[in-house]
Amino acid sequence: SVSLMGSEDNGMEETEVTAAGGKSIYMVSDGTGWTAEHSVNAALGQFDYCLVDRVCPVNTHLFSGIDDIDRLMEVIKQAAVEGAMVVYTLADPSMAESARQACQLWGVPSADILGPLTEAIASHLGVTPSGLSRWAPGRSNSLSEDYFRRIEAIEFTIKQDDGTLPQNLHKADIVLAGVSRTGKTPLSIYLAQKGYKVANVPIVMNVELPSTLFEVDPEKVFGLTINAVVLQTIRTARAKTLGLGEEGRSNYSEMDYVKEELEFAGKIFVQNPVWPVIEVTGKAIEETAAIVLRLFHDRKNKCLMPRISKRY
Amino acid sequence: SVSLMGSEDNGMEETEVTAAGGKSIYMVSDGTGWTAEHSVNAALGQFDYCLVDRVCPVNTHLFSGIDDIDRLMEVIKQAAVEGAMVVYTLADPSMAESARQACQLWGVPSADILGPLTEAIASHLGVTPSGLSRWAPGRSNSLSEDYFRRIEAIEFTIKQDDGTLPQNLHKADIVLAGVSRTGKTPLSIYLAQKGYKVANVPIVMNVELPSTLFEVDPEKVFGLTINAVVLQTIRTARAKTLGLGEEGRSNYSEMDYVKEELEFAGKIFVQNPVWPVIEVTGKAIEETAAIVLRLFHDRKNKCLMPRISKRY
Ligand SMILES: Nc1ncnc2c1ncn2[C@@H]1O[C@H](COP(=O)(O)O)[C@@H](O)[C@H]1O
Ligand SMILES: Nc1ncnc2c1ncn2[C@@H]1O[C@H](COP(=O)(O)O)[C@@H](O)[C@H]1O
Ligand SMILES: [Mg+2]
Ligand SMILES: [Mg+2]
Repeated sequence: SVSLMGSEDNGMEETEVTAAGGKSIYMVSDGTGWTAEHSVNAALGQFDYCLVDRVCPVNTHLFSGIDDIDRLMEVIKQAAVEGAMVVYTLADPSMAESARQACQLWGVPSADILGPLTEAIASHLGVTPSGLSRWAPGRSNSLSEDYFRRIEAIEFTIKQDDGTLPQNLHKADIVLAGVSRTGKTPLSIYLAQKGYKVANVPIVMNVELPSTLFEVDPEKVFGLTINAVVLQTIRTARAKTLGLGEEGRSNYSEMDYVKEELEFAGKIFVQNPVWPVIEVTGKAIEETAAIVLRLFHDRKNKCLMPRISKRY
Repeated sequence: SVSLMGSEDNGMEETEVTAAGGKSIYMVSDGTGWTAEHSVNAALGQFDYCLVDRVCPVNTHLFSGIDDIDRLMEVIKQAAVEGAMVVYTLADPSMAESARQACQLWGVPSADILGPLTEAIASHLGVTPSGLSRWAPGRSNSLSEDYFRRIEAIEFTIKQDDGTLPQNLHKADIVLAGVSRTGKTPLSIYLAQKGYKVANVPIVMNVELPSTLFEVDPEKVFGLTINAVVLQTIRTARAKTLGLGEEGRSNYSEMDYVKEELEFAGKIFVQNPVWPVIEVTGKAIEETAAIVLRLFHDRKNKCLMPRISKRY
């Protein structure tokens, strides 16, 4: 029996949270908690308008590796004390059911992210879910081919970042070309983590591009472009971070130079009409990644409805 | 009115899928689709036992940027034709409702991943969801501080990968130390994408470690270790990929050498007892990342229940 009173968890942190204000969301997982975090992030996008300027501040707290009932109850009890809601992913159905009941009993709003989806998939596949969490002793944890492919993609992508190895462009799955600060590096890394070997080639005004860029399959090359004003703002901030001298080009963030460099890039894109040109202004990295991959798979599969397919 | 018959989408791809066999899951989003993909991946973990060796093969198909009713109906119709289930994240409640109804009408099993969570959060916060998708015209897409922080973390982490800049260790949030093929690089990148500046330092037998490693706050240093047999297997595969000569050390993947190098690392870890040592054998990168970050935040916050907290 767990009592709400006399909880020994009422330490410094709650006071901190209360002082700071805002509603809390507890994310509880028997695994890493990344799934809950990702879903909550997406859902919070629906409240951007009131999160902005902290009109309605929200605190999230991620509890990972909660795989026994005692710790689960402790977290939920704590949520009750803090007036938080609980979002959970618990593979063991009896743990999920306990979470549901405890939340109901203690008046804690809750949402099960894994259960309903798992059940829907189970009845679609006609098989029973294992009920085993990521870290359950019964699970085999042999690393898959896919796992090693991803690591290779990450290592490839890091090694040839910033155009360092133009002779390797033919080994890349995807090649990104764009002027400085169009987000080539973070985009490359994002795609690499999904298993694609990415090479990126910086476009610098009046600097000749590596000839290999024009020799590889143009269907795998993507141009990145950005609004000149936004780019200038980003570059100015960047120049400050680097220290003025370090960048080596004082006009790097000057508007005339920014515009000319974008035009220079634009001309190259026009000369290579097979390359799609993606406008990245105001887009998050994962958004640009989604656009690149949709085009990439679309070109490969040539089906009427663009889709990204995988086999498990 | 949409008819299931006479669909013009019945192209080459369906035949392909039928020939390959297996059940299909359609993931449909008005945004990138990464949330649906992440959730489906986690849920499929519950069916590992029957996905292995393709006993019950599953095909997933990701449809991103589905933000008008016509394309939504087209995808669902296609799902009906293929006998697929539909998992969706649609910010506009009327789109979500249309999806639900169409699936019901056409006998397509479905699961709404965003709606229930958004509603639960809305009633917890006492505010109404905007109903606007990521790419809706009404949304401001100003890039946040957090956004730039992440990009900086990625760039920092790439630059000093593989111990290249030991003088920068003091600038890192997290420092990883371990022998070759313990996953330092992919782990660093994973953490960097979450906004942490990571430095990694390779431990190589009889090679002196940079003195800065022992000068930085030991609370931010993490040792990685791995089972010798598993490491040998990984290194053997690695040596093949690189070509025998390239690695420059023929004994790199020999069992005696592997064991000795792990012992060498082990001694360093014993000499630095503040560093937690994480056993990575059989763990996915995101699993090790969860462990590192839990310890990291726990050490910073010193609360009774380890948690990772954020403010929105
Ligand atoms: N490969 C897997 N095998 C079994 N369960 C998994 C797997 N991946 C994720 N899960 C479960 O899915 C939920 C979300 O995982 P996580 O993102 O690690 O919190 C947790 O309940 C995990 O136990
Ligand atoms: N920042 C955001 N603002 C509004 N909606 C979002 C945001 N991020 C994600 N969403 C929505 O959350 C769902 C999942 O997003 P995604 O992972 O891009 O498919 C979609 O319905 C998106 O429209
Ligand atoms: Mg989770
Ligand atoms: Mg989605």
